[in-house]
Amino acid sequence: MSASEQQAADAAAMRRALDLAVLGPARGVNPRVGCVILSPAGERLAEGWHRGVGTAHAEVDALAKLEPGAARGATAVVTLEPCNHTGHTGPCAVALIEAGIGRVVYAVADPGEHSSGGAERLRAAGVEVTAGVLVDEVEAMLDDWLFAARNHRPHVTVKWASSLDGRAAAADGTSQWITGPEARADVHRRRSAADAIAVGTGTVFADDPSLTARAPGGEFFDAQPVPVVFGRRAVPSDAAITRHPHAPLFFEGADLRADLAELARRGIRSLFIEGGPTLASAFIADGLVDELLVYLAPALLGGPRLALGELGVPTIDAAIRLDFAVIERLGDDVLLVARPTEGN
Amino acid sequence: MSASEQQAADAAAMRRALDLAVLGPARGVNPRVGCVILSPAGERLAEGWHRGVGTAHAEVDALAKLEPGAARGATAVVTLEPCNHTGHTGPCAVALIEAGIGRVVYAVADPGEHSSGGAERLRAAGVEVTAGVLVDEVEAMLDDWLFAARNHRPHVTVKWASSLDGRAAAADGTSQWITGPEARADVHRRRSAADAIAVGTGTVFADDPSLTARAPGGEFFDAQPVPVVFGRRAVPSDAAITRHPHAPLFFEGADLRADLAELARRGIRSLFIEGGPTLASAFIADGLVDELLVYLAPALLGGPRLALGELGVPTIDAAIRLDFAVIERLGDDVLLVARPTEGN
Ligand SMILES: NC(=O)c1ccc[n+]([C@@H]2O[C@H](COP(=O)([O-])OP(=O)(O)OC[C@H]3O[C@@H](n4cnc5c(N)ncnc54)[C@H](OP(=O)(O)O)[C@@H]3O)[C@@H](O)[C@H]2O)c1
Ligand SMILES: NC(=O)c1ccc[n+]([C@@H]2O[C@H](COP(=O)([O-])OP(=O)(O)OC[C@H]3O[C@@H](n4cnc5c(N)ncnc54)[C@H](OP(=O)(O)O)[C@@H]3O)[C@@H](O)[C@H]2O)c1
Repeated sequence: MSASEQQAADAAAMRRALDLAVLGPARGVNPRVGCVILSPAGERLAEGWHRGVGTAHAEVDALAKLEPGAARGATAVVTLEPCNHTGHTGPCAVALIEAGIGRVVYAVADPGEHSSGGAERLRAAGVEVTAGVLVDEVEAMLDDWLFAARNHRPHVTVKWASSLDGRAAAADGTSQWITGPEARADVHRRRSAADAIAVGTGTVFADDPSLTARAPGGEFFDAQPVPVVFGRRAVPSDAAITRHPHAPLFFEGADLRADLAELARRGIRSLFIEGGPTLASAFIADGLVDELLVYLAPALLGGPRLALGELGVPTIDAAIRLDFAVIERLGDDVLLVARPTEGN
Repeated sequence: MSASEQQAADAAAMRRALDLAVLGPARGVNPRVGCVILSPAGERLAEGWHRGVGTAHAEVDALAKLEPGAARGATAVVTLEPCNHTGHTGPCAVALIEAGIGRVVYAVADPGEHSSGGAERLRAAGVEVTAGVLVDEVEAMLDDWLFAARNHRPHVTVKWASSLDGRAAAADGTSQWITGPEARADVHRRRSAADAIAVGTGTVFADDPSLTARAPGGEFFDAQPVPVVFGRRAVPSDAAITRHPHAPLFFEGADLRADLAELARRGIRSLFIEGGPTLASAFIADGLVDELLVYLAPALLGGPRLALGELGVPTIDAAIRLDFAVIERLGDDVLLVARPTEGN
């Protein structure tokens, strides 16, 4: 095979590995990974994918389908760098070496602190290694898992709904409904796409939210975020979140970065913070927010109940600068999506 | 002439009267008015327009161009109902009657309390009167003048620039620049289009603004709004507004509706309120605002310096409801134009 024929064959096999990867679970501690074993002549000998914590990794799943010795001199094409770590299973790098694999092709390097080094180990054992094939496509598929693995925390979105003058509630604390049905439906869709949804104890006491993701008719979406409550105060035993399909997680909130790291360790890759103002402000002040969703209603409220409180910004030059990524009308309201300016 | 020929001839003459009207001054106490005198056969005998306070009204200006008796049996086509009021000049209705005009065609009824009734007076004298010809076009031309005449106050726009969390300044009071150059240029263009621009004494003391309308290079626009300051405190004698091309007007602000009526009497048809938060909130709470311009920067400030303060809204159902008329990106910022919901 010429070099360009080889590249085309690698890419085709990787595309198949990607299709296999997405058969695995989209949420949880482990990434979705797919693997294809090719004969030296380029025929597909076996395929595998990872089905979640406690099950075989994709490489091992594929090798298991072959007779002993059948992988000798073969090529393993896998979406993620084979791991170098003994967990529920032994290191995949070792399994590939022991099976006699002659060449390994992967897309994305393993960002894990304990699991990386697989490529090095393979090379040291004389296996030919090619990295970066279809890297963009595979990175896109691993998006939230890679974010959490690289940053040691979930991707954090803070959402608030406010009047045009930045109030999250009227003077007496009422806030249902600042925004209209289209904005609320958008919130529920985004909740459903997040692994977890958080509020502070203040919001639990004030609003007793259910923190479920529901269609406009009230039916639950299939995917429900895990409810998370931040604060030292004990939540009432009959709070609505106790009836959530997932058991709520509780954090004191004294060290938000540590709490986020713990959430990432538990497989939470994306966290949707729904308030209130105190909790949202604390996350923003700590520089832990990746995206802001501001649902602005065409209304004015005045008064003391602000959507955000204190952020520790003394002067205009110290403002927390963002970029507007999306500006969208939702019924009578406007959704502004903002992200921290790069290098800020 | 058939009825439809008559209508077409009236419309054609009104279009000419409209062209004449806009030769007059766009600002001031009096409306722009144009007039065409047609012979019974439909030839244009004379034309006139109003050149501002203290000069002849359009009808009188046109009649003055004719030999005595030449208007007998003629038709006067005029954009505004002939006045019935003795001011700097006598009532135009009487001038038309005395000139022997046989028919009067006008577009818009005179909304003035003291000047209206001209059509009635003409009819009582046996003059044939046709109203409403090209009424939409002429109303559009008279837009701000009609608004002020009908509402006994200028059209009021409140503008603020704030961070996404509704702060008009950082904790230490600094606010230059929350928004970027495109937003600031937009503000200056809109300032230039307003008859007057207002701030509270708080803003004068804090920022010493010049309240001029300038191009990005600093050059003054031709049209400059009259600076207006609301508040009881005396403004420093060396304040920047004292160097404004127009002499500033001062109001205590104890009765904003009365102050606006006084501004309208002085020929101010549109007022652009640039803050600060206390003055803007007072105008909003009094229900005296027709349009809000909110320039939102993609930034967060937190802290106590809000774009709006207290509005007297106790609960969510009492929120001041608006509609978003325009949502526009201006450089890195967003401009939201909102207007009170009809019937609110
Ligand atoms: N418009 C909206 O989008 C929206 C959304 C949500 C809520 N709200 C409104 O917001 C109001 C509640 O506001 P809130 O600010 O009291 O509620 P909150 O932010 O939900 O809760 C505040 C509590 O969070 C806890 N917390 C945990 N970690 C923290 C940290 N690092 N820093 C600071 N606090 C931390 C503290 O609880 P402990 O004292 O227990 O330690 C604190 O008292 C209600 O009126 C609700 O309706 C509006
Ligand atoms: N980001 C922006 O768009 C923007 C725009 C302008 C100003 N600002 C900032 O706003 C701050 C100044 O705020 P401010 O609220 O003190 O200034 P302000 O609203 O300009 O002035 C307040 C003063 O207005 C007078 N006033 C007149 N009629 C009133 C009425 N009916 N009700 C209440 N007050 C009335 C009172 O003056 P007397 O006490 O003299 O009677 C009052 O103290 C500065 O930091 C400035 O930088 C920001």
